[in-house]
Amino acid sequence: MIGIPRDQWYVAAYSSEIGQELFSRTICSEPILFWRTRSGQVTAVSDRCVHRRFPLSQSPSRLVDDQVVCGYHGFTYGPDGKCTAVPGQTRIPRTARLQPYPLVEQDSLVWVFIGDPAKADAASIPRAPYLDSPGYTTVAGMEPLKARFSLLVDNLLDLSHETYLHGGYIGTPEVAATPITTEVDEDAGVVHVSRHMDDAECPPFYAKSTGLQGRISRWQDIEYTPPCLYKLHSRIAPVGSVPNPDGSDPDAFHVEVVYAITPETEHSTHDFWAVARDFALDDQEVSDFLAENNRTVVLQDVTALEILERVVATEPEGYQELSINIDTGGLAARRMLKRIGAQQQSVPARS
Amino acid sequence: MIGIPRDQWYVAAYSSEIGQELFSRTICSEPILFWRTRSGQVTAVSDRCVHRRFPLSQSPSRLVDDQVVCGYHGFTYGPDGKCTAVPGQTRIPRTARLQPYPLVEQDSLVWVFIGDPAKADAASIPRAPYLDSPGYTTVAGMEPLKARFSLLVDNLLDLSHETYLHGGYIGTPEVAATPITTEVDEDAGVVHVSRHMDDAECPPFYAKSTGLQGRISRWQDIEYTPPCLYKLHSRIAPVGSVPNPDGSDPDAFHVEVVYAITPETEHSTHDFWAVARDFALDDQEVSDFLAENNRTVVLQDVTALEILERVVATEPEGYQELSINIDTGGLAARRMLKRIGAQQQSVPARS
Amino acid sequence: MIGIPRDQWYVAAYSSEIGQELFSRTICSEPILFWRTRSGQVTAVSDRCVHRRFPLSQSPSRLVDDQVVCGYHGFTYGPDGKCTAVPGQTRIPRTARLQPYPLVEQDSLVWVFIGDPAKADAASIPRAPYLDSPGYTTVAGMEPLKARFSLLVDNLLDLSHETYLHGGYIGTPEVAATPITTEVDEDAGVVHVSRHMDDAECPPFYAKSTGLQGRISRWQDIEYTPPCLYKLHSRIAPVGSVPNPDGSDPDAFHVEVVYAITPETEHSTHDFWAVARDFALDDQEVSDFLAENNRTVVLQDVTALEILERVVATEPEGYQELSINIDTGGLAARRMLKRIGAQQQSVPARS
Repeated sequence: MIGIPRDQWYVAAYSSEIGQELFSRTICSEPILFWRTRSGQVTAVSDRCVHRRFPLSQSPSRLVDDQVVCGYHGFTYGPDGKCTAVPGQTRIPRTARLQPYPLVEQDSLVWVFIGDPAKADAASIPRAPYLDSPGYTTVAGMEPLKARFSLLVDNLLDLSHETYLHGGYIGTPEVAATPITTEVDEDAGVVHVSRHMDDAECPPFYAKSTGLQGRISRWQDIEYTPPCLYKLHSRIAPVGSVPNPDGSDPDAFHVEVVYAITPETEHSTHDFWAVARDFALDDQEVSDFLAENNRTVVLQDVTALEILERVVATEPEGYQELSINIDTGGLAARRMLKRIGAQQQSVPARS
Repeated sequence: MIGIPRDQWYVAAYSSEIGQELFSRTICSEPILFWRTRSGQVTAVSDRCVHRRFPLSQSPSRLVDDQVVCGYHGFTYGPDGKCTAVPGQTRIPRTARLQPYPLVEQDSLVWVFIGDPAKADAASIPRAPYLDSPGYTTVAGMEPLKARFSLLVDNLLDLSHETYLHGGYIGTPEVAATPITTEVDEDAGVVHVSRHMDDAECPPFYAKSTGLQGRISRWQDIEYTPPCLYKLHSRIAPVGSVPNPDGSDPDAFHVEVVYAITPETEHSTHDFWAVARDFALDDQEVSDFLAENNRTVVLQDVTALEILERVVATEPEGYQELSINIDTGGLAARRMLKRIGAQQQSVPARS
Repeated sequence: MIGIPRDQWYVAAYSSEIGQELFSRTICSEPILFWRTRSGQVTAVSDRCVHRRFPLSQSPSRLVDDQVVCGYHGFTYGPDGKCTAVPGQTRIPRTARLQPYPLVEQDSLVWVFIGDPAKADAASIPRAPYLDSPGYTTVAGMEPLKARFSLLVDNLLDLSHETYLHGGYIGTPEVAATPITTEVDEDAGVVHVSRHMDDAECPPFYAKSTGLQGRISRWQDIEYTPPCLYKLHSRIAPVGSVPNPDGSDPDAFHVEVVYAITPETEHSTHDFWAVARDFALDDQEVSDFLAENNRTVVLQDVTALEILERVVATEPEGYQELSINIDTGGLAARRMLKRIGAQQQSVPARS
């Protein structure tokens, strides 16, 4: 089993999920409390009162101005986690502080760093600028997944499953039939998997959203930055169309499909998904269609992966899978995840 | 706790349950996929794709002619389990094969062999010919039981419980009051338990089905072949009636009650039950009555045994039962099950 | 984690719960069967048939006169637990006896002794005479709590939580704001925690029941006798009123709030609560109000403690709480519970 890598940045939420009220989400088995201060900052602290561990997100705990008051005995904390009041006495113990988490809000995502805060380097967070860019329109959601995150990594790194699991939505026979190329950039920590279909059936997902009729050229270029960010650069164009030498690509439709794969616990995952397009930017009907269609596809994955989680959880020790060419990307991702895990094991654990 | 014996034949299903569609059942913790080929053969292979272990019984997996296609990535297998197609490449790995299970279909039952296939001897399967014989009419069913199989063995080997748990259905005071005789045939691997009541109240189960009025002679002759097949030869006749010296027995009614006790997991069991009679062969009303009445009795057992499973699961280590004469058959069955288990431990485990 | 102390008396039920029918409750992980004999005695024996461990409280087990008949095979037992009949034979094994529990019925409570019966000293049971005394009217109930008993001990020993968790019912700002005094009587095995508020808001719980208007003097005097009995002597009076030198206290209202904290299992608790008052003795409206209001308060605790149980169950090993002055009583109680547990560890365990 691939453990949850620590000392890593993870997507905890969409920016839009966090307002001026208490919001809790468990990331890598750590319960974290978020709220947006009146000045607009997102704050992230441990969602456990230091006194008797009552969850501060739990009613009757409440936010009073920019302070959270515990609903059990009234311990009060500021946005930095420092305790500002306790019951029955005026002296506040020096150690009374909720653990704060390094946090970065960018590309419409809220990232937190799980592990040793001294290692948190905001510059290392991978980017997904399309999610928050005027040239794109984005639909997005998050589905809770009762399966270990590595099963979702496997799933997304091998899109041949679209043909079988997502037939009638985004899958066509050519996806499974077309070989892939895989490249691993060890320095950048990125796995690339590409599948270019030059003459393929157009699945409903793209036919209805682009209006293209007939067969298409369909490119799938995956860029996975373990552990959390997965980007699928999808190019849809009439058969024969290729980008111009200068990079412009006026006949094509581009869709950036972004997943953030965030472990909730060892056996559950936050499955964030977003679909950004560079066409029909103001067409609400297209937005509604893509949101509904992609959510259906994600839920097909959720169903399959939750079945696999139960299978894996009950299978005998040492069970062996069989891998073939389509798995090259997934196996590279597993190796990278294991190496990240091994690095963190060489330093003392923090918990 | 008595473990699940391996290197044994188990009833997996009634023949009538398996048609030309995918059917999955877990036997001794092994998920097995069944279907009947167009030529009428029942096939049994591991219900896990060799690639990423997706259950082949799970939608959108499907049967295409006599081949099963995995719903996740399209791996395809024939009735013998051999892989015939994989996505993205023409070469099929030599080791790509679902584990096939030795299978025998007889007496209206589908038997599979769990363990080392080299030890599978079809001739050793115990028979229950009445289930599929023109001289008998049979009603049958299967109830899922959330309790370890050994609790059902205990239950069936000691029918004195009929008086208390099944009063008003098949129990009368004489069952608990009449002593039993027990014989163990070590060579044949059979436990016999007999109780002959010469002058007993006739319970509704037999009064309504046979039409007998007044008191009866009631014989219960148990023949248990561990681990799976239990037969109760039940003879109901007017008081004083005995079989003729030549074996003919025209005044009596014979009911062959058959149970197949198949472990699903360490803590759950498939409780197959069948009632075959040699009278009122074409009387649908009698069939309906016996089916409904016996199912009620089985469900009374299920309720009691599921309670016992929870009791056993939470009791302190080393808890001691107290056994008396009525338990002679059950204790003999336990000893035989433990000996079977010990034999298989002396050879390397297969999993 | 604080284990369940053995060799201790625990409240198993209210007297009113046990009549001439089978009643089962699990105390300290031991399933116990109770019934009241025709002569009025409460009997307590193990709720497991000695034969095949079927629960004697479980249908179709039943009480026939003062004997319990097992619903599985008919083993029969008298009120002392001795077996009086078994199926199929007249000889009853000498060892066929349900374990009897030492039992005392007093103060409207049924106490049982869990552990070595030789250590059961009825004189050591703490008293709560108001629950069964003509000078008081009592309302009472029991809420099942899916949390370890020590979380309820923590809760009740630190009433500052009333201000936050029970605001609008029994909490006012003064409870959390007023310091406590704590005294530990090691010889008597009692923890005392007192909080005297001389000029406090009157919460609805007392305003509506006493009819007092305006601010009050409110005394909370806790007397906890680990592990099971918790008494809160509550005195409500107009501001400035104090008891007379002779102990009489005509201007005050007295409420004795009694909790019995009985572990059901390591992770669940029977939360018995009673409110005895020395005023408005015949006023049903006051009784109804206090019963409904106190039950609401207990359920607020249940909700919070069940959340804490889940938090504690999933937190990393070695998690550290932070304690302040309000916790003095709770910490003293924990120390006493640990000492009781250590004593019993020095003698061989019985189970």
